[in-house]
Amino acid sequence: MIQASLWTHYRDSLIVCEDLGLSVDTSRIRFAEGSAARLAEPLARAFRAMAELEGGALANPDEGRRVGHYWLRDPDLAPEPALAEAVRGTVERVRAFAEGVHRGEPAPERGGTFRHLLVVGIGGSALGPQLATAALGTSTDKMEVHFLDNTDPDGIERVFERLGDEIALTLTLVTSKSGGTKETRNGMLEAKAAYERSGLCFEKHAVAVTGEGSELDRVATAGGWLARFPMWDWVGGRTSELSAVGLLPAALQGVDVRELLEGARLMDAHTRRPDAAQNPAAALALAWHHETGGRGLKDMVVLPYKDRLELMSRYLQQLVMESLGKERDLDGAVVHQGIAVYGNKGSTDQHAYVQQLRDGVPNFFVTFLEVLRDRRGTDLEVEPGITPGDYLLGFLHGTRRALYESGRDSISITLDDVSPRTLGALIALFERAVGLYASLVNVNAYHQPGVEAGKKAAADVLVLQRALVEALNTEPASADEIAARAGRPDEAELAYKVLEHLAANPHRGVSRSGGRHPRSARYRRI
Amino acid sequence: MIQASLWTHYRDSLIVCEDLGLSVDTSRIRFAEGSAARLAEPLARAFRAMAELEGGALANPDEGRRVGHYWLRDPDLAPEPALAEAVRGTVERVRAFAEGVHRGEPAPERGGTFRHLLVVGIGGSALGPQLATAALGTSTDKMEVHFLDNTDPDGIERVFERLGDEIALTLTLVTSKSGGTKETRNGMLEAKAAYERSGLCFEKHAVAVTGEGSELDRVATAGGWLARFPMWDWVGGRTSELSAVGLLPAALQGVDVRELLEGARLMDAHTRRPDAAQNPAAALALAWHHETGGRGLKDMVVLPYKDRLELMSRYLQQLVMESLGKERDLDGAVVHQGIAVYGNKGSTDQHAYVQQLRDGVPNFFVTFLEVLRDRRGTDLEVEPGITPGDYLLGFLHGTRRALYESGRDSISITLDDVSPRTLGALIALFERAVGLYASLVNVNAYHQPGVEAGKKAAADVLVLQRALVEALNTEPASADEIAARAGRPDEAELAYKVLEHLAANPHRGVSRSGGRHPRSARYRRI
Repeated sequence: MIQASLWTHYRDSLIVCEDLGLSVDTSRIRFAEGSAARLAEPLARAFRAMAELEGGALANPDEGRRVGHYWLRDPDLAPEPALAEAVRGTVERVRAFAEGVHRGEPAPERGGTFRHLLVVGIGGSALGPQLATAALGTSTDKMEVHFLDNTDPDGIERVFERLGDEIALTLTLVTSKSGGTKETRNGMLEAKAAYERSGLCFEKHAVAVTGEGSELDRVATAGGWLARFPMWDWVGGRTSELSAVGLLPAALQGVDVRELLEGARLMDAHTRRPDAAQNPAAALALAWHHETGGRGLKDMVVLPYKDRLELMSRYLQQLVMESLGKERDLDGAVVHQGIAVYGNKGSTDQHAYVQQLRDGVPNFFVTFLEVLRDRRGTDLEVEPGITPGDYLLGFLHGTRRALYESGRDSISITLDDVSPRTLGALIALFERAVGLYASLVNVNAYHQPGVEAGKKAAADVLVLQRALVEALNTEPASADEIAARAGRPDEAELAYKVLEHLAANPHRGVSRSGGRHPRSARYRRI
Repeated sequence: MIQASLWTHYRDSLIVCEDLGLSVDTSRIRFAEGSAARLAEPLARAFRAMAELEGGALANPDEGRRVGHYWLRDPDLAPEPALAEAVRGTVERVRAFAEGVHRGEPAPERGGTFRHLLVVGIGGSALGPQLATAALGTSTDKMEVHFLDNTDPDGIERVFERLGDEIALTLTLVTSKSGGTKETRNGMLEAKAAYERSGLCFEKHAVAVTGEGSELDRVATAGGWLARFPMWDWVGGRTSELSAVGLLPAALQGVDVRELLEGARLMDAHTRRPDAAQNPAAALALAWHHETGGRGLKDMVVLPYKDRLELMSRYLQQLVMESLGKERDLDGAVVHQGIAVYGNKGSTDQHAYVQQLRDGVPNFFVTFLEVLRDRRGTDLEVEPGITPGDYLLGFLHGTRRALYESGRDSISITLDDVSPRTLGALIALFERAVGLYASLVNVNAYHQPGVEAGKKAAADVLVLQRALVEALNTEPASADEIAARAGRPDEAELAYKVLEHLAANPHRGVSRSGGRHPRSARYRRI
């Protein structure tokens, strides 16, 4: 297609959300002839399923749960008045709590006002807050936000080293629906130990976001933590950014969370329209379906040309891959679905892997994120009449065109600026697109059965570790011998791995001789 | 295979580098029967090509360049004594310069000692330094390192806001081989403006790493910058971490760069062995070839279970994708090669997308990075006898097993710890694996023809922008009309994009009416 007819196609297919300052362009997706007609009936079904979900159906059948993240920004949709009341009340409590913290009520144990926020959480309890912190942070933030999002002791140590004495002015937010997530539990215990090393009472600096009656809820209640906020079982982790999980850290940072909610609410209205030509989420879902053959045949490369949106790809990795990456469809057939997502930011990535995108394996499509507003401060001209922002968008448009000309398709989402409102809208846009696409390919977007298997497997390793430690004695022995003594002769490889780990760390009571090769390594108790 | 025979296979195939505290395990790659034999001859050719490359052949034929990154850590290999001397002399100058800076010679314009380092660079001039800063940073670092790695004015503003008054104690390092990279040029001009806003002379805080005689070299010489360090045309950007590009920021941060070099040198010796069973880089290249069918059919997911290695995947995205992602092979045939790389860190990613890895599209293989040493500080027991580090490795082993059992293959690389020496070794390991794999699939790993196209396309956009601005007048007109007036009626879509961008920013002299839809939007000069 020549530029002029591409322009006509662009104008005809562009979906503009004037109220949000956002548009979605799928003109650079080479839809197959008749594909819209072929998907019309599945898409109509997807809209019906979405209406039922919003109405309170058990849209997550495997877990017997309702799926209510759309109610968070429009409580009038909630199927029961009590839910609507809970949503409204929580937003008010979040705002009031954050305002209180900002003026020193509650105050840190040793006085002053809280200046730092430490979010302890993983997965959906970290990715949304991390995205929002990066996307919306300004030099006038009320609090600086830090994260413990893993069980890496070295990573945890670095966070507390960075905080230093400022730990006395740090509010810690522990987020876990069940309270049973081990990474978060470990992060909480490390945080508690860090406060206590500084002579501080952890509980006087701690807030919980968790399900009512969870293990964490009990700990927080018993310890007299500063506050507790709810996580509802009808909000999944990866769609929880607009619940207390995301709203509380955002409000504490200084973001007007009503704007986040309003952006999502307005986008929800756009993405509820049953007309695919007017619905930006349906446009995305249809583009994904075309590009991936409805079977994940291509990866989704996410390229925001804006540093503060760099974490968008990580956020979407979870939202897209955990929602769509399923072994079975809703009828129980083995389908191995999903769409892989990766990317960082433009134009930086043009100097990393756009070489491959342009010339190499054509196993992807790109989602460009364009932001029109360049900066808050004064423009700098780097050449007469040209600013760094002109270059940034020049690189975007140049890359979009170069990719298209070499047969690589792309979607472009344009935002006026990065604000609480547009971020809320982006989140809502992708939530809906994922839900619609899941319907098109007939999978449950709201469970994650594979995650449990990893947790179970890790627990098994720790059981083995305890048995191995008991089976050690002061005579050097091979991993085979120690595994056999521990009654697990079949687990010699894992025994080797566990013993190598223990021996590499002082004070774990294990010494190795004979080098690291499994043929020669011998371990003993010290 | 049951666990016991997997263990035998593990022991037989494990490649251990005792001198580096590093091992490479490809036992969870299900090599096809006879695949080693089939690739024996191509691999022998790859070793010969590598020997020729190390000997000074024009291994990058398209650009007529030698490929000398192996000489950086073993100057005796360099084909001419003058090169060896240049390498040795530069390492010494880097170390001496950094030691001087640490004791206040050179000192900042207003006195004191430099406390911050601002690296201005993109692609190979940023990714290695970013990886090293994150991987090797400690609380006793001599300088805190910041980056301008894009031409996003908002992102640049945030860096200077964070620095605040500390800009007076900030040394700025501008890195660009040609000096013609626009993102870096723009970053340099923004940095100059920021120093001058603080009443400081940029040039008294500036150091250049660039090719002799480049545009940047001339600017630095004319401006009397503090120092200049060389980039040689026989070192490619993505393999430049062990040249001044990476060594200088590392030394300034406080890293013993001799250890980085020594780790790479030792690994080079391992990966030079022509015996695939003893060569960890050959083992990786063969595994990649098997997994991807030698055609990029699967993605490489990089999962370091260590927060400080989180940027490894971004570093490898460039190294692997820019090296292998090629349209044509060395014989000129169209091949569209490459291997897509993504990943962040474990166990965090288990709560993001491992759901899809386990259950979804089987279009990937995993590279686990395991680090045995947990932390510098004191262990915390989170359960009797169990630490957060036990959980971390428990999750790794559990995931590795769960993936294998559901038919997903993986490589595991185990390190004693993350140190300058093991980081140097890791970089050298992947450099060699990429070089060998490129030989196996017959592509030039050392050029990047597709990158130029993106730059050219961006320049065209800016030319159009200038014409559009001239064609604007005070009467509102559509993008079509203004494009036609500018003599570019075929470029109405790009005109719309450029005008939207200008109108969204104050002080650019463009006003829009009629909303954002291209059918109704009208632009005029203000």
